[in-house]
Amino acid sequence: MQLRITNEEILMRQESFLKKLSDKNIEGAILFKDIDIFYLTGFRFIATERPIALIIDPNGTTFLFVPLLENDYAYENANVDNIITYPEYPGLKHPMDYLNEQLISLDFNNINFGVDSDGYSSPYGYRGPRLSEIFDNKRFTNINNVVEEMRFVKSEGEIELIKESCRWGNLAHRLLQKYSRTGLSEIEVSMKATSEATLAMVDTLGSGYTPLGKPAFAEFRGQIGPMSAFPHVTTQNLTLRKGDNLVTWGAADVWGYQSELERTMFVEEVSSEQEKYFNFMYEAQEIAFNNIKPGQLVSTVDKEVQRFIDVSGIRQFVPHHTGHSIGLMMHEAPFFDLGDDTIMKPGMVFTVEPGIFVKGIGGFRHSDTVVVTESGMEKLTYYPRDLASLIC
Amino acid sequence: MQLRITNEEILMRQESFLKKLSDKNIEGAILFKDIDIFYLTGFRFIATERPIALIIDPNGTTFLFVPLLENDYAYENANVDNIITYPEYPGLKHPMDYLNEQLISLDFNNINFGVDSDGYSSPYGYRGPRLSEIFDNKRFTNINNVVEEMRFVKSEGEIELIKESCRWGNLAHRLLQKYSRTGLSEIEVSMKATSEATLAMVDTLGSGYTPLGKPAFAEFRGQIGPMSAFPHVTTQNLTLRKGDNLVTWGAADVWGYQSELERTMFVEEVSSEQEKYFNFMYEAQEIAFNNIKPGQLVSTVDKEVQRFIDVSGIRQFVPHHTGHSIGLMMHEAPFFDLGDDTIMKPGMVFTVEPGIFVKGIGGFRHSDTVVVTESGMEKLTYYPRDLASLIC
Repeated sequence: MQLRITNEEILMRQESFLKKLSDKNIEGAILFKDIDIFYLTGFRFIATERPIALIIDPNGTTFLFVPLLENDYAYENANVDNIITYPEYPGLKHPMDYLNEQLISLDFNNINFGVDSDGYSSPYGYRGPRLSEIFDNKRFTNINNVVEEMRFVKSEGEIELIKESCRWGNLAHRLLQKYSRTGLSEIEVSMKATSEATLAMVDTLGSGYTPLGKPAFAEFRGQIGPMSAFPHVTTQNLTLRKGDNLVTWGAADVWGYQSELERTMFVEEVSSEQEKYFNFMYEAQEIAFNNIKPGQLVSTVDKEVQRFIDVSGIRQFVPHHTGHSIGLMMHEAPFFDLGDDTIMKPGMVFTVEPGIFVKGIGGFRHSDTVVVTESGMEKLTYYPRDLASLIC
Repeated sequence: MQLRITNEEILMRQESFLKKLSDKNIEGAILFKDIDIFYLTGFRFIATERPIALIIDPNGTTFLFVPLLENDYAYENANVDNIITYPEYPGLKHPMDYLNEQLISLDFNNINFGVDSDGYSSPYGYRGPRLSEIFDNKRFTNINNVVEEMRFVKSEGEIELIKESCRWGNLAHRLLQKYSRTGLSEIEVSMKATSEATLAMVDTLGSGYTPLGKPAFAEFRGQIGPMSAFPHVTTQNLTLRKGDNLVTWGAADVWGYQSELERTMFVEEVSSEQEKYFNFMYEAQEIAFNNIKPGQLVSTVDKEVQRFIDVSGIRQFVPHHTGHSIGLMMHEAPFFDLGDDTIMKPGMVFTVEPGIFVKGIGGFRHSDTVVVTESGMEKLTYYPRDLASLIC
């Protein structure tokens, strides 16, 4: 069993991208975004201070521009016509000088081309000139969103990988719940669950499984007890205590594809106040599920959830929107947000996760991964959502 | 024991940053880079599609601009004078509109200010206007490198955290070597070593340890047997076999600080050819160590290593430079590279890792983390480097 997107599908993506360029009268393209390069070529690399770019010339020929150290690996993995290398970054001659020479030899100073950004950037110590310092910026248009929008609707192959991710996230989460006990540290519990789920995943899937990110894992990310009231806290090395709210996260990388499973759980017992907020959260998530339909605006989903929040008088506890798309990135556009007017289409994959955060008590959020279908939606995550099932 | 940078040190960083601005006649600043915001405020956040910015006004007052969901967590963790929130991204009104209103109210349209980029960017589905669409771009200068250059020389407190990282990376690596056996999968070996080292680390350090990244880990990242000849391969789910080259990686996050320990190991036996390349690599690393001295150019180190590579007739097997700085990021500037003319100073922390990669045989690379001292350098990693110690 090969758990990956086929090379045929990757080449179809390139064709579709080329068509979008020609529809815009764009004759060539330069892409620097690692995730879009992976999407279009199947080449997953560790993005560092060394620039990597995908170039498409006016004939539709593809060139992958990489540092010498990536040459052999790119040759074996990238669906491109040519690989061009430069010696090193920063090097005696800057990588952008090599890139610009290549672009000029491909006639980029006489065509209208698209770019996803005005040069390479990286937090890992990269410094370099912008493209606009070499080319007249009237020559190029920003096509930053073109590949991103291709990624909005997932193919059957992509949905299969996301389903596989859900399966192993479910196992990791099941183990996380099983090992969550008073007196244990969050890191101990999550390490135990993650380790066991990862080994089961690898033994089950065998050599056809290549993780491009983390295999199966489940964790709390610091959302233990009152700290769970901070939606984006990081791991705190806290100890679980009786009565604590827990907000969890489980997933697994399958050839770069992600899913998201989050649950609100309670250690041993739940107070009536915790139960009250849990029920609001549960109901808000139901409302979201019921409003996911192709042809509707994504904002509708958030609007209905926020209306419920308002009439329930819990506005002050709700600091974020209802969800986001997910696929190659853990967060992707479009968003279940009042301000997003994208239309839902079959094949779009979203997280559904309205959250309630009460200072001093804790956080209340489930997140499920769903796919929009022809008639509504299908849940890809399948972990129990009811309170009784979520007391450790 | 609190393993973190003190708030006093963080406030000193802000003072030093303000002084650098005023030396450049810059009256205010806007920073979007998450790692620089962490460095200057102590607030570590998960960077997503929701913009976060640090603003410093002409009076030196600091403002952290965050989405509502980060408000409470920022309030508890960020060393800033004010926290400003916007409701959500994309929202009914774009976060950049809120930011621009705030900047105008702080008189940014009448001062000369510094920015680390012309607006926010994120791979997680963010779209938004540039600052230059709001402000005359003659008003602002790029100060992208100012905080980065402050991070070049590590303080005593930072070096202590990096040393702590080395200690736990060493344990994880020791266990990785112990568990590396013919017939086991790379994921199984690394999960076992990582899990055991992480639990030992957490139990030893107790509640004073807050990981802001991964606690102790060790892995192969796909560099098993002939695949180890690809310097930047990712985990392949391969099985270890007798005679395989292994190239490893061990480290641990300590309050955001990293170290790097890599070793070339062999499963059960080593061929004379493997031994030959191992010895070249060992010698190249020795040459690098011997050339690390304050007052010298960082390029000197790479120059001496590359000279050795040339005279040894192994040029075709050496696709990258000798090393990089390390600290809050796994790769940082400056680099041990022919083209980097930064001068070495006491307190700079580098990896030393010349690598030899022979197609069909494997990769040969040790990486040690070292700090430049008043008279030379000190190794912070201390795992055995000799061949006899590295046969599993």
